[in-house]
Formats: sequence, structure tokens, C-alpha cells
Amino acid sequence: MKTPLTWLLPAVLVAIPTQDPAPIRGFSTEGARAQRTWEARFKSIPSPDSLRSYLRTLAARPQHLGSPYGKANAEWLVRTFSSWGLDARIETFEVLFPTPKERVLEMVAPTRFVAKLREPVVPGDKSSAQTAEQLPTYNAYSIDGDVTGPLVFVNYGVPADYEELARRGISVKGAIVIAKYGGSWRGIKPKVAAEHGAIGCLIYSDPADDGYGQGDVYPKGPYRPADGVQRGSVADMPLYPGDPGTPGVGAVPGTKALPLDQTATLTKIPVLPISYGDALPLLSSLDGEVVPPSWRGGLPITYKTGPGATRVRLKLAFDWKRVPLYNVMVTIPGTDAANEWVLRGNHRDGWVNGAEDPLSGLIAEMEELRAFSILLKEGWKPRRTIVYAAWDGEEQGLLGSTEYVETHRDELVAKAVMYLNTDSNGRGFLGMGGSHLLERFINEVAREVTDPETGLSVWKRVQLAGIARGSGRARAEARNRADLRIEALGSGSDFTPFLQHAGIASLNLGFGGESGDGIYHSIYDNFEHFTRFNDTSFVYGRALAQTVGVAVMRMAGASLLPYQFGGMADTYGGYVEELKTLLAARRDEAVERNRQIDEGVFRAVTDPRSPRTAPERLELPPHLNFAPLDNAMVALRTAADRYDAAVAAARLDGVAAGANETLLRVERALTSPEGLPRRPWYRHLIYAPGFYTGYGVKTMPGAREAIEQGFWDEADREIGRIAGRLAAAAGLIDQARAALVR
Amino acid sequence: MKTPLTWLLPAVLVAIPTQDPAPIRGFSTEGARAQRTWEARFKSIPSPDSLRSYLRTLAARPQHLGSPYGKANAEWLVRTFSSWGLDARIETFEVLFPTPKERVLEMVAPTRFVAKLREPVVPGDKSSAQTAEQLPTYNAYSIDGDVTGPLVFVNYGVPADYEELARRGISVKGAIVIAKYGGSWRGIKPKVAAEHGAIGCLIYSDPADDGYGQGDVYPKGPYRPADGVQRGSVADMPLYPGDPGTPGVGAVPGTKALPLDQTATLTKIPVLPISYGDALPLLSSLDGEVVPPSWRGGLPITYKTGPGATRVRLKLAFDWKRVPLYNVMVTIPGTDAANEWVLRGNHRDGWVNGAEDPLSGLIAEMEELRAFSILLKEGWKPRRTIVYAAWDGEEQGLLGSTEYVETHRDELVAKAVMYLNTDSNGRGFLGMGGSHLLERFINEVAREVTDPETGLSVWKRVQLAGIARGSGRARAEARNRADLRIEALGSGSDFTPFLQHAGIASLNLGFGGESGDGIYHSIYDNFEHFTRFNDTSFVYGRALAQTVGVAVMRMAGASLLPYQFGGMADTYGGYVEELKTLLAARRDEAVERNRQIDEGVFRAVTDPRSPRTAPERLELPPHLNFAPLDNAMVALRTAADRYDAAVAAARLDGVAAGANETLLRVERALTSPEGLPRRPWYRHLIYAPGFYTGYGVKTMPGAREAIEQGFWDEADREIGRIAGRLAAAAGLIDQARAALVR
Repeated sequence: MKTPLTWLLPAVLVAIPTQDPAPIRGFSTEGARAQRTWEARFKSIPSPDSLRSYLRTLAARPQHLGSPYGKANAEWLVRTFSSWGLDARIETFEVLFPTPKERVLEMVAPTRFVAKLREPVVPGDKSSAQTAEQLPTYNAYSIDGDVTGPLVFVNYGVPADYEELARRGISVKGAIVIAKYGGSWRGIKPKVAAEHGAIGCLIYSDPADDGYGQGDVYPKGPYRPADGVQRGSVADMPLYPGDPGTPGVGAVPGTKALPLDQTATLTKIPVLPISYGDALPLLSSLDGEVVPPSWRGGLPITYKTGPGATRVRLKLAFDWKRVPLYNVMVTIPGTDAANEWVLRGNHRDGWVNGAEDPLSGLIAEMEELRAFSILLKEGWKPRRTIVYAAWDGEEQGLLGSTEYVETHRDELVAKAVMYLNTDSNGRGFLGMGGSHLLERFINEVAREVTDPETGLSVWKRVQLAGIARGSGRARAEARNRADLRIEALGSGSDFTPFLQHAGIASLNLGFGGESGDGIYHSIYDNFEHFTRFNDTSFVYGRALAQTVGVAVMRMAGASLLPYQFGGMADTYGGYVEELKTLLAARRDEAVERNRQIDEGVFRAVTDPRSPRTAPERLELPPHLNFAPLDNAMVALRTAADRYDAAVAAARLDGVAAGANETLLRVERALTSPEGLPRRPWYRHLIYAPGFYTGYGVKTMPGAREAIEQGFWDEADREIGRIAGRLAAAAGLIDQARAALVR
Repeated sequence: MKTPLTWLLPAVLVAIPTQDPAPIRGFSTEGARAQRTWEARFKSIPSPDSLRSYLRTLAARPQHLGSPYGKANAEWLVRTFSSWGLDARIETFEVLFPTPKERVLEMVAPTRFVAKLREPVVPGDKSSAQTAEQLPTYNAYSIDGDVTGPLVFVNYGVPADYEELARRGISVKGAIVIAKYGGSWRGIKPKVAAEHGAIGCLIYSDPADDGYGQGDVYPKGPYRPADGVQRGSVADMPLYPGDPGTPGVGAVPGTKALPLDQTATLTKIPVLPISYGDALPLLSSLDGEVVPPSWRGGLPITYKTGPGATRVRLKLAFDWKRVPLYNVMVTIPGTDAANEWVLRGNHRDGWVNGAEDPLSGLIAEMEELRAFSILLKEGWKPRRTIVYAAWDGEEQGLLGSTEYVETHRDELVAKAVMYLNTDSNGRGFLGMGGSHLLERFINEVAREVTDPETGLSVWKRVQLAGIARGSGRARAEARNRADLRIEALGSGSDFTPFLQHAGIASLNLGFGGESGDGIYHSIYDNFEHFTRFNDTSFVYGRALAQTVGVAVMRMAGASLLPYQFGGMADTYGGYVEELKTLLAARRDEAVERNRQIDEGVFRAVTDPRSPRTAPERLELPPHLNFAPLDNAMVALRTAADRYDAAVAAARLDGVAAGANETLLRVERALTSPEGLPRRPWYRHLIYAPGFYTGYGVKTMPGAREAIEQGFWDEADREIGRIAGRLAAAAGLIDQARAALVR
């Protein structure tokens, strides 16, 4: 067996000992030196050729949940990881997965038109020709239905759009709505439509947002062609993700599922996604009001609201089967702290071939594991246990990850120190989202990886982009704040069950921002497209493997868990200010609107040829008691400052295990077993997907959404609950400090 | 002869004596009572039926400058006014007016396409079928030329657009540019294109801005159809308007004109306006960079910049003839103050039939004159002389009004107390622009006229719209300021020579803001279109006649000229603050940009697949001496306050003539015989059209444009010149006060 460092001598590495390396949070000076050497070795391993070869295999055929090739991929991954000497296995669940038996969309008046509902084979793109294995274009978890009604265009179909329609006296009751993709997560559209009395919902990709407006369409360019369709789940994920039939319970084979009529996350009305090719005849047939300018899309028509003579029929029937789901799990046991787990995942299922989504992220994960397998042979010994996952069934609603977390919740709550997620990868800038106690940690990691296009660190490139694109305070922070701010996580990928159900500190990473495309959830998201238009040389795939690998190695190797609470307190303090500002803005809005109603403003400015009704008078929001939150923030800031001082003074080569055990519980302390109002599955009181945004985050969601929706008593209660959780976190931080100075 | 008030008794009028009427600025209490009675009588006269009948006659055939029907209309107006007992006559000038001999636009590579350059006859629209008399689609004062070159899309073709292109390494040198209408006055586009080395310029109406994006196109709806074209002048009007051959001199028949090669306002390159129907094949053929999102239009294509394989040929040849121009002038002599003139005008020429532009304004003017003729017979005696004008040749560049002002400049400078302009009319809200010493005056007038749709005063409706649409300070001002702010005047209509060349206090009025259309400068701006889509019942034509008539009667009847200087000082003080803010913003921009260049921001964020060059380092603007302007503003504010106090204290039934003679010179004092830098025709130092905006106003233009363009010495000088003129105005106001209290 070779000594681990024998061939680490050349060029880039010999320089390191002569520099004075930056400290690494959680490591002693000696620990950091050894760690840096292993990281350098690690970063030298990921190879673009390997990444390309994985992608070619994994994306070779349609590989969605329940498909033969999806299962074959799972088995191939286990074989491959095993061949590298790793402990890999499949964990199987059984989940609800409806697929279409019948899809009919036709305009029945004033003229007849039958929608194609089909993405054509593109010459030169062999993957697009695998028609026998492709899922048809549809939205999973739409209910069955056969409805006919007038058509109404509702812009993005978010609540504000229905307010605009109401001002024009337009109702969708008994109508089929057609909404543009965008502006919210897709599942929000049928939910809001049904709340307003619609009987059906079409969702289409408008070419201004997702098509020729952005650039040349496939195959000439990367953007969505006229017949391209975005598939996707429309389950009510803000209620709970995972198998709709087994909320809160792991769907291990044999688990009893809810009957369909008691399954709360299915849509209330039938929903179908369509292309802009199919949407054009429908939209150009519409009469009624001309839409507000901000509603216009890129089709060469006058966008109108309807309703009018245009009537459409939507008929959908599904095969409501339960199918096996195959997560691939890899475990690298830890040494000193085997009971502390570092988890990392990327889903492996696509809607069709899924080259970009998700395989561009999964191939990085594979290279991380290959590199780890080499390091292990060279003597690398992670202190903590590392668990890698390739999730199945993410596209249907985070099924694989959610069932895993629900099944293993107690163990995860006891052991997990971090879940690190990726989900697709592109070129450009490192996107960083996550729990704010990991802000310092991931900032440190991002300084260690080189951006392949500029030669700068990926951190530096993100910082300079923040300067270029920000303004005012954001720009000043990009220049002067110790860390770049990371985004709070909403939903849309597999971090959700870890962070928002189990309270595990999480990160979500990925490169992007250069070379957009329009193949999301279509048959054109395949190897041909990816290698023509995206990370064609796989250098960003390598950069992602390097970034995530270093993060995992640090989290697994640190003497003291590298959490930091100053940035977290700073960010949470900002959320509290946002809540106050939101309440004040609602108050100002109510005062102003009611005053305008009294002044006769709305009556005066309306054009009698297209009259607008005055909006409703608004109830004046009460003042709320923010004192508990302000007090909790004082405690949190104080604890964070003291903890940082203690860390700076501590010798980190002999950390009391008690400190880590306590630290691990800080993120957990931000959750409540009762969860959020009306959606108890979501237990984190700081981060959740918005009830009416879907993917978009709402921070301190209980209070924020109560204020937004005018539930004043609830807002008061939620402020108190959040304050309690912040105070509990502050207490744990104090306790960890005590363990540290002991 | 009837006594004047015999039939003024019913309903609306008998109520007036029982109210306590608001005072009228410039009138004594008794004077105001008599004035109000005459105004009520006046407002009862204008009739929708008359307006409709005038429009039917005037718009019956194409009636542009130099056309047979244009001349017939002039003669008909004189006959009509004379039949009402008014002193009407034609004043003739002779002006340069090129019309096309040849127009060819073709794409010669990569495929061949020949542009139609023709607006089709619309079934059911007889006016559109008058093809023998219609001017073809073209831009007046484009030079002759026959050029072939690559095509480059330049968005709106304003200077900032060329900066965007430069960042992408794209030059228009030797190219033909294609620009969208909008974003600036059309004449700016070829001017800026030529400055950047282009050899030809196409201007098209994009359907997002002017076509199906806004609503149904003609004849289904009011908006611009695929083959509709906006004609228009492209003379360099910001240099000087009027006959290009006789700058500064009245083009009375026989006047020697400049040779064409010395005529500064002709374009430097050939220019042609085209429809979006003709633009589509050209734009969809373009290669090169995908445009920035804000550049996208409404065509169903990927907008790209070029250049590439696309080459076009543009061949234009004109008949450079001089033609007679017929202004129609009506004079109503004053009594006590016949040497003080109240002028009012609207142009009468259209590009084709011109129902909306300009006849919807001209017919109101006719009703005002008919009502005055009745009032005169009933015993009304205006103190001041009233001069009405129906200008010819406005469309080519304010030819009729400019030649009139240049011819009669000395008399106008001595006598004119106001020029009130209208130019088209629509439905909705009263737009008010003008000299700020008339702000109080026109606010008072607007309170006296009833909006036909809401029954509110037109003032109230504008105020409430300001509350509805404004925010922050603008909304608070709409609620609380004594007067609604009026817009500063740039250019685009016949007020320009009066205000900006002769220094005559001016107003520009018109209703609008409801029911837009897309027939501007096309063959579809005709009686059929207007009576289907615009002010179909002519109630806003009546409201315009009522508004303008009351304004003219008040200005002609007031004992003391109803100028007010507090609002003017407030507004001008705001301009001074804008200049300071502009300089500070330029400084901040320079500091920030240079810092970003030093930080390597631009290099770091560029995508190597579509690289952007870093912008140029900016020179740091010096600090400028604003003290003279601050001091002059103190003097102006003080004088304004004292003057108001004196007016409040004065008995207005025996005003010294000296006060009016002095007041009349206040607006004149804001001019300088040297004019603006590089464009001496523009003599007003407070209001001018922007050198790079065309219609858009630049206030305190000498200083503002010098700061914008980085001419620091010039900015310093211009600040001094403006300060001098403000101080002179303050001196005159003081002098008028002295005459008043004497």
C-alpha cells in the first residue's frame, strides 16, 4: 500500500506548505494542514471524461420513476460504487404514481381544434426518438376529469392575477383557465384556480419566458421549441411532499396508503401542461378584455382574458398505480464520530432522459464517490460517517428523499449534522442556499475551488457578480461583509424533508447563470442537448464535485462542527425587520386604499368603455407584539458573539464531544413538533416553501403568511412560537460554548 | 340685437349668482362676476354635432402640406370664419417639402425580399381607398441615397443602445441600422446612427409598442395593422424647426433659401419608415447576438443584433421642391389693451387625412371661434386682441408656426401675453403642459369645465388620477399642493417657436389617456376610424373647446395678467436640485465604474461564450459652482412671494398698464439672444427639446446637457447664464409689484 502523500508532490501542491494557509473553521492548526493536503489530493481526481461517460450511460434512455431503465440505472450505480470498494445498496419504497391513460384537449367553439400534446422527434437527436419509453406530456397528481367550459386566461395564475380579473368583473367560476408557466411553482396554479371556482386548468410555456423570446429554439439553439412541453408534478407540495398516500410515514413496501379520495395533495381539478404551439389557437381565439401590459407574452397575438365564445374540453384519465421506488444509498463509516452523519444527495430520476435535470448533478456525486474511494485506499479516515444518496422519484414530489427521511427520522434527528443537496448543474456562478449556521462554512469552501472560466475562486466570482448586479446595500455587503449571503431554502428539491421536516442543517449548491435553455422536463433534456449547449467540456461538473467534495470532507473531518451563528443571527434579525415592515406596509396599504375609496379615486379614473370596479375596503391591521421576537434576537445575537469568542480561544484538537452533540441540536431547535398552521408536516419555523409560491421561500413562515393573509391572532401566536424556538437555539449555543470552554 | 343675457336663465346658470363664486386671478370681484357669466354662456355653445360635421369636411380627403385639399380646407376655413363675421385670412409662406420619387428597400442576402412600403385599402374604410392623393410612406427630409450594407438592429437607436452594442463588440460602421419607433423622437434615430457611422436607417413600428401587443388591429380594433406605417419628419428639429432652408427667417414667398448642401437639418443618411410586416423578414433573418431582454419586441422571433449574412439595399430619391404653405389667421381685436395679444393655435395639416392628428384639435378651435362670434354679437368685448391660427406644415417640422413667428418676431415679442396650443384630442384626462407662470392660471380654468364621463371637473379627475397613479411625493402633492403640476414643454408641436424662440408664455392642452390607437401618421387616421374608436360622441371635443375658450377669454379679459410666480419658483428650484443630483449621480457613477474596473468585475462576470468588453473608465466630474443659481433662486422666490402678497392686497379694477407691460416681459427675460450652445435658434434657457430626445424636454438645457455630456466648462458658463436670466425675471417681477402697489 502506498503512503498517502507519495504522489502529491508536483506543482500546485508543493507550494502549499510554503504559504501560511488560512485556518479552517472547526480544525486545529495541525488538523487544518492535514485536511488541506487531503483536499488538494481530492480536488485533483474528478475528471471531465469520467463525468461525460457517466452521463452517456445514465441518460441513454428515459429513466423516470417506475421505468425499466430507471431501475437499471439504480442497479448500475450500486454495481459501480461497489466496484470502487464502497458500501452501496438500494433502498426500496412503494409510492403512488399515476400515468395517463387518456389525454384530450380540444377547442369546441367557436372553431374546432385538437391539441397535439406531443413533442416531436428532432432530426439528429436520437434520444428524442425513444418514443416508446417516454412519459407523455402531463402533470402528475392531476385528478381524472372530463370538463368543458369557457376559457379564461389568468396570466401566471397567482392570487394577484385573480384580483386583476375581479377588477374587470371577470370570474373563472365554471371556466377552464389557461395560465403561463412561471411566477410561482406550477402546483400553485390549479390550486388557486380551484379556489376561485375553475373546473380545469391548462398551463403552457409562453415563448417570451421560455422559448424564442430568449434565443434560438432547439435544435438550432438551446431554447424551447413550439411543441416543447414542461411536464411536472402538481401535487400540493406546500401541504406535504413525498408519496401523497403516506403523509408523514415512510412508504416501505406494504405500507397502507390513503384511499385516493382522502389524499389531500391531489389537485381539485384536472390539469394539463401544453406547448405554446398548442396554446396559440386557444389564446388567439379568446375575446374579452385586453390584458394588462405586464401580462403579455411573446405570441404574435393580442392577449385577452376571455371569457367569450371560446369553449374547450379537457379530458384526463390516469392509471393510479403504486410503483417501486429505488433510492441508491452509499455509506462511508466514520471513525471517532461514526454516530454523526454527513449526508449528501442528488436525485437520479428525470422526467424523461433527464441529462441536465438531474444527471448533471448526479455525475458530480459519482465523481466525489470515486475520489473518496481512492482517498480511502490512500489512508484518508473521515471522523464522521458519510452517507450518499441518489434519490428516485424526486420529480413527482421529492418522493425518494421524503420517504427516506420519514422512515429514518429518529436516527437522522439523532445523528445528522448536515444534508448537502445538488440538483442539476450548469455553467457560471456558484449558487449557495441553505441553513444560515452553515453560511460561514460554505463561504470558506467556495474560496478553495477554482472557477474554470476565469481562474478566480468560485467565491470571488460570485462576489464580483454581486458587485456587478447588486446596488446599494447589497453591493456594499458584497464588498465588505465577511461572508457572501446565502439564500434561504424554500422547496423544489430534496433538501426539503431534511431541513423542513427533520430540522437538519442543509445546503443546496449548483453552478448556473450562463447559457440558459428551454428543455426543462421535456424529451430534449438529453445527452445530445447537454453536450451541445450546456457544460460541454464538463469543467463545471468537475468544479461542482470539487466544491461538494471539499464541503463533505470538512464537515466529516472537523474536530468541532463548523457552524457559525453570527451570520445566522444577522440574517434572522433581518427577517424580523421584514415582518415589521410587511405589517407596516399592509397598514399603509389599507389606509391608502380606504382613503382613495373615500376620495372617489377609483370611480374617477375608470374608463367607461372598459370599466374597473373599485377594490374592496381593507381592514386596518392591528399592531402586533414583536417584543418576544426582539428579545429572542437579543439572546441569539449575544449567544452567537460569545460562542465565536470561545471558538477563537479554544484549542480544537481536543474538543469535548459534548460540544458537537449540542451543536447538532441547534438547527433541530428551530423546529416544532406541531409544525406550521394547517401544514404540520412542515416543522421548521424559520424556513418553508410559501403556501402560495410553492418553491419560493417564506422565512419565519408562520408569522409572515399570517400577516400576509390577515390572520392577526395567528400572527401573534406564531411570533411567540418563533421567539421560543430562537430562544431555545440561543440556549443550545450557550450550552455548546460551555462545553467548549470546559 | 338681443341683450346678451336674455336666454341665459335656465337651470345651470341661474344657480351661479346664489353661490359665492371663487375669485378669478387677475379680475376684481365685480369683473370676475361678469366674466363668469360670459364664460357660462360660452360653455353652452360648443356642440358635438358641429364638431362632427367639421371633422367630416376637413378629413374628407388627404390634406397634407402642398396638397389640393389642404388648400381647399384653408379656403373653406376662411370662408366659414368670415361667414361668422370674423376677420379671417390666409397667410402664405413658401417652404422646402421633398416628396418621394423613388423608394426601394430590399434584402439582397441571404435571401431576397422586397419590402411592400404600402398601406393597404381596408374594406369598409372609404378614406383608406383615396390612394391617388395619399402621400407614400416616407420620412420627410431624409436625404437621397442608394446604399447597400449589412443590417444591424439597434433597439430604439438612442445613444445608450449603441453603448450596449459596443459592449458586445458590435459596430454599425458601414451598416444599415433598423430601429424601433419609440424611446426618442424619430429624427434622433438617423442622427445618432450617422454619428456612429451607419450608412442608412430604417425605422419600424414594433407590434409590442404599436400594434397587436396593445389590442386588436385595424379594422377589427383601433391598433396598428401589420402593414401600417408611421410617416414623419426626420429633420434635425432640436437644431431648429421650420423651413430647413430659411433658419431664423420667415419664408415669405420669394425668400432666398439655403442650397440643399448647406441645409443643416437634413439627415446625413437616407431614412425610411416601414411596417412590422415589412420588418419581420429582415429581423428574422438577422444573426449575431441575442438582444438584451429589454430590447425584445412583439414579433414571434428571436430578436438579434446582427450583423451577419443579412444585407439590405435602401434606395431613396426625392423631389426637392418648395411649396406654398397656407396658415389661416383669425383676429378678434381687443378693446382697452389691443396691443396685448392672446394667441391660440392648432395645426390643420395631417400626414394623410389626419382626422385625429390634428383635426380633432382643430374642430375644437372652430367651435371656440363660432362661440366667440356669437358672444361678440351679444356684446362681449375682450380687453386684449385674440389671434387664432390654423397652422399648415406642422407635420414637416412646425413649418407654419415657425415661419409665422420668425416673420412677426418683433411684434410678437412686444405684444404676446400667451400662446395656447392644442394638437389632437382624445378621451380621458386633461393633459396640461406649459410655462410655469401659467400653472395657477390653467389650474383655475380646469376647475371650471365638466368632464363628460364622470361629471367631475376636469381638474378633479386629473387630481384623482394623480393620486391613483402617483406614489410618495407625487401623490402627496396631488392631494395637498395648491395647483396640479404642469409639464414642462419640449417640442413636437407648434408651441415651440412661440415659447422657445420668442419667449412667449405658452400652454399645450389636450385630453387623452383612454382608448389608445395605432393609426398615428397613417392612412387609417381618418373619419371612419375616429368615429368608431375615439371620441365617438365628440363630448371631449366639446370639453376641449370649453377649456381652451375659457382660458382664452380669461387671458383676454383679465385686468391684471393672471401670471403667478410662486409655482414657477417652486418648479425651477426643483430643476436646480435636479442639476445637482445629476452631477452627483455622474460622479457616483464614475467612481463606481472605475472601482469595478479596478476590481476586475467586468472581466469576472463575462460569459466566455458571449463575451462583453468592460466599459471605458470615466473621467471624474469636477464640482461646479451652483452658487449663482442658488442666489438667483433666492431672488426669484422672494420676488414671487412679495408679488403674490401685493396682488392679494391690490384692487384689480384699476390696474396700472405698466404692471401688465412688465409682466409680459417676464417669460421673455428667460431667453437669451445668443440661444443655447450649438443651437442658437433655441433662445429659452429654461425649456428646450433635448438634443438627443427630440420631443422630450430638457429643463435648464444648457447646463443639463453640458453635465450629461461632460462639457464641464460649458456647464459652469451655462449655470451662470441661467442664473442671470432668473435674476432678470426676479427683477421684472419686483418691478411689476412696484407698478401694482403704486
